[in-house]
Amino acid sequence: MTEMMEIPPRSGTAFVLPAGAVLTVIDPCGQQVSDLVAFAQNDMREAISNGRTFDYEETIFLTTGNRLWSNKSQPMLEIIEDMVGRHDFLLTPCSEATFRHFYPGKPLHRGCMGNLVEALAPHGIVSDDVPTAFNIFMNVPVDGETGRLRVLPPLSKPNDSIRFRAIMDLVIGMTACSAYDSNGGSFKPIQYAITRD
Amino acid sequence: MTEMMEIPPRSGTAFVLPAGAVLTVIDPCGQQVSDLVAFAQNDMREAISNGRTFDYEETIFLTTGNRLWSNKSQPMLEIIEDMVGRHDFLLTPCSEATFRHFYPGKPLHRGCMGNLVEALAPHGIVSDDVPTAFNIFMNVPVDGETGRLRVLPPLSKPNDSIRFRAIMDLVIGMTACSAYDSNGGSFKPIQYAITRD
Repeated sequence: MTEMMEIPPRSGTAFVLPAGAVLTVIDPCGQQVSDLVAFAQNDMREAISNGRTFDYEETIFLTTGNRLWSNKSQPMLEIIEDMVGRHDFLLTPCSEATFRHFYPGKPLHRGCMGNLVEALAPHGIVSDDVPTAFNIFMNVPVDGETGRLRVLPPLSKPNDSIRFRAIMDLVIGMTACSAYDSNGGSFKPIQYAITRD
Repeated sequence: MTEMMEIPPRSGTAFVLPAGAVLTVIDPCGQQVSDLVAFAQNDMREAISNGRTFDYEETIFLTTGNRLWSNKSQPMLEIIEDMVGRHDFLLTPCSEATFRHFYPGKPLHRGCMGNLVEALAPHGIVSDDVPTAFNIFMNVPVDGETGRLRVLPPLSKPNDSIRFRAIMDLVIGMTACSAYDSNGGSFKPIQYAITRD
């Protein structure tokens, strides 16, 4: 039986995902975002790279069949199933600085960046090492003419999921997002499970 | 009189750009790309970040009035004049790996990545430190519906330019691009000048 883990609202976690294992990420309530970062377990300076991924996949919207690539031009994760079809790889994790900028009247929060740094600290990661995250379920439409982007509520419904297969041994950092705009103003948990096919 | 510097075809350079100085980048022949990266001179782990820039500028297409932000949420450069209006901040510098992937029949080249690493080595930078570059004059349209991107010849005409003002003391790395697609299959120089207003 597969154990289901839960990331409480506005928090984060980190774990090892061995090559070949499948990571299922579930949005139990719907309209919540999970920021995901990945590092090569044997070289923590190798991390997912939105730029390399956009290069090799030739799209900014990643879904089933697409792979997430590292800064060293190696595929790290493949999306093998996707019930939502819209995720973001443009924007960085929310942080104290983004809370100050976007929500000046709201209480300050360390955001996904602070949560990722704490969760990944046992793996030697500091904030400068955290790359632009793959923001699961985050809905950031882009106007192809002007380039303008907007952050809209996710398209995910309760219990929608996405599944990734690890292509190498990875250290994964993952959050239940802390920002107001990315989840429609509510804070919810994220669930995940690790399995073998 | 302002000294004009030239970056020969398929090469790179690095230099200090003090706060307040203006960097003018010129495409002398037209349809050439220059990959630009920037680091805080007093902390080389602070670098331009496409994700933070997209966050704060709320667009993927940067032009006059937009700023390039660092991974530490500080503005590094402001675009103060832009004769072309189309540049790319999605894609990583071309490298040996991208040459193998995109141009399997063509001679291998270390690309802008190799050129940036060599030019920035005296500043302590290694390849893992090189972020996604701001690719001056690079023309990468994005389909807002599908997310598909294409690399087309630049829109720059001979002697078109872009001007940046440094907001902090910076170390800049810059190239004359080595890839076939980004400059329409020809390799050309890039010129630049550093001035005070």
